Amino acid sequence: MTAVTVNRRIVLARLPEGTPCPADFAIEELRSGMPAAGEVALRTLWLSLDPYQRNWMAGGGRYGVTPAPGVTVIGRAVSEVLASADGRFKPGDLVLGETGWQTHPIVRGEVLERLDPAIDPPSAALGILGSPGLTAWIGIHDILQPQPGETVVVSAAVGAVGSVAGQLARLRGARVVGIAGDPLKCHVAVGELGFDACVTRRDDDFPEQLSRACPDGVDAFFDNTGGSVAAAVYRLLRQDARIALCGLVAEYGFTTPGPSLMPLLAAQASLRAFSVRRHLARMPEYRRQAIAWVGSGALRYREHVVDGIEQAPRAFIEMLAGRTIGKALVRLHAPCGLAATRPEHALAPA
Amino acid sequence: MTAVTVNRRIVLARLPEGTPCPADFAIEELRSGMPAAGEVALRTLWLSLDPYQRNWMAGGGRYGVTPAPGVTVIGRAVSEVLASADGRFKPGDLVLGETGWQTHPIVRGEVLERLDPAIDPPSAALGILGSPGLTAWIGIHDILQPQPGETVVVSAAVGAVGSVAGQLARLRGARVVGIAGDPLKCHVAVGELGFDACVTRRDDDFPEQLSRACPDGVDAFFDNTGGSVAAAVYRLLRQDARIALCGLVAEYGFTTPGPSLMPLLAAQASLRAFSVRRHLARMPEYRRQAIAWVGSGALRYREHVVDGIEQAPRAFIEMLAGRTIGKALVRLHAPCGLAATRPEHALAPA
Repeated sequence: MTAVTVNRRIVLARLPEGTPCPADFAIEELRSGMPAAGEVALRTLWLSLDPYQRNWMAGGGRYGVTPAPGVTVIGRAVSEVLASADGRFKPGDLVLGETGWQTHPIVRGEVLERLDPAIDPPSAALGILGSPGLTAWIGIHDILQPQPGETVVVSAAVGAVGSVAGQLARLRGARVVGIAGDPLKCHVAVGELGFDACVTRRDDDFPEQLSRACPDGVDAFFDNTGGSVAAAVYRLLRQDARIALCGLVAEYGFTTPGPSLMPLLAAQASLRAFSVRRHLARMPEYRRQAIAWVGSGALRYREHVVDGIEQAPRAFIEMLAGRTIGKALVRLHAPCGLAATRPEHALAPA
Repeated sequence: MTAVTVNRRIVLARLPEGTPCPADFAIEELRSGMPAAGEVALRTLWLSLDPYQRNWMAGGGRYGVTPAPGVTVIGRAVSEVLASADGRFKPGDLVLGETGWQTHPIVRGEVLERLDPAIDPPSAALGILGSPGLTAWIGIHDILQPQPGETVVVSAAVGAVGSVAGQLARLRGARVVGIAGDPLKCHVAVGELGFDACVTRRDDDFPEQLSRACPDGVDAFFDNTGGSVAAAVYRLLRQDARIALCGLVAEYGFTTPGPSLMPLLAAQASLRAFSVRRHLARMPEYRRQAIAWVGSGALRYREHVVDGIEQAPRAFIEMLAGRTIGKALVRLHAPCGLAATRPEHALAPA
């Protein structure tokens, strides 16, 4: 560890209203100290950008309180241990934890988890082999349980969660229809991820396109978005349709109403809202299975990578606006020269 | 049977928009004939007014098509057989069936069910001992399964369904909070039906009143209404809260959006929409239990009775507007002199 370390962190300059903008964020630099007893000093390598962070800014989710301006933005990260005053960690260890949008956090050791060496590349611990992947697994495997031949619709189809959910449903033999923001994403969903069909939600005739893509109606709906996208799917629900609700990106930070539940009543549908945090004990089981599937090529994933913590707000805003494909990540301490040459939408290694 | 019978029926003059008004209905008189082979000629005694009829007018529910103007309004009724060309029925039999808003229908025998003689008075077959009661039973007994000490909220608390749902939840040991349209109804809910508390939804501070009535939050919600009432309950949901959705009276005939599902996400709640028609095979089991409870006084009910088929539209509109208490019924062929003396809100016999 160098003698003087500067921690750069992104704080909330003010609470976003509706869609966040760059001025909602500020960057701060503080001289970092040495870890006190029980603490660990970290160097952040990969920072995870997730829609739930927007919900946190609105006082939603598990936090239940609106954050105060000036607070560091929350977020999971893969980090390297620089110095440790917790006997469980030593310099050079790779760890996982909700350490926030900062380059050199000092945190208590108990909030950290040693990175499973089977996770390669380490960034996958934040996506396909981490919480987003487990979210998809719980929604498909536990809640929706699609059967062969059933039609499953997945919103935010090429997002970190939706892309895995759709592939997991296909592995169970279902017919999978994705909903995504533009034709390029639909091309990825069908061409790379193996979805049976994909519909562009921004098209004026989106509801009609969706209806044509689901000629037998919808048996199960993995919903990341809510809003008008969900309303269009609701209208196609078959009797006893199931809905797994894991996110409401379209509604985060807005006080808009949701879609009418009338179609659920007509379909006698069931809806289960869930958060992955309840199911973290299932991570080893999921990870074991997912590592095998990724290795065999049965499960594919993409990463959207930007370099430098100062890029986090912009990348976060782009992700919320649906302009990213796959898991959105901020890479810190990038190897020299790599950042400029890596295409943002490159298919991930392996 | 008299030689010449006139069938008076209420038809849709036009499709209601939003809240129905009297001009949406018309009365027609037709000379009634004799039943053909397999048919039964009836005299309607009690006509059931139910919110699902509004949904039918909007093309919702199981019908899925918008009715054509001129069609007889649908509805269940208790009737007496006048003449029968179906060997299973003979004149004088009391029967139950979806025979519509008409005084002297002729229908095929297979749509009729002989009235269980244990159902006394016969009008109870349309309320506490019929579909509304079974709806409450399925929602409480099968879906919500409230446990002792849990808080259960019931909307439309003094309606035909809600009044039973609340009492069934209390019989299971739950703490029951009703939501009703005015203080008189709340008085009935608490004073007569045994609810622990009741809140008036028309009050400006309704959400705050509801919050105070549910200091520990809401474990289960039996929802008949949707709309802003549901939104206020959603905000109080505890972790893993359950919602049984059996009606959306506030949304029938309107194209309004529903409440935001954000609170469901935060609570990881589950919602099950259901219709009683799926569960009609459970009627004997429910009826056996309910007859015993009504007999012992454990289950109480009210009827809102109007006399004469020409009163059906007005009473239906009043029921939708929340101006009735208990099961809304139209009595045809009332005994002379009784109609004028029976108070509308009388507690039912027994």
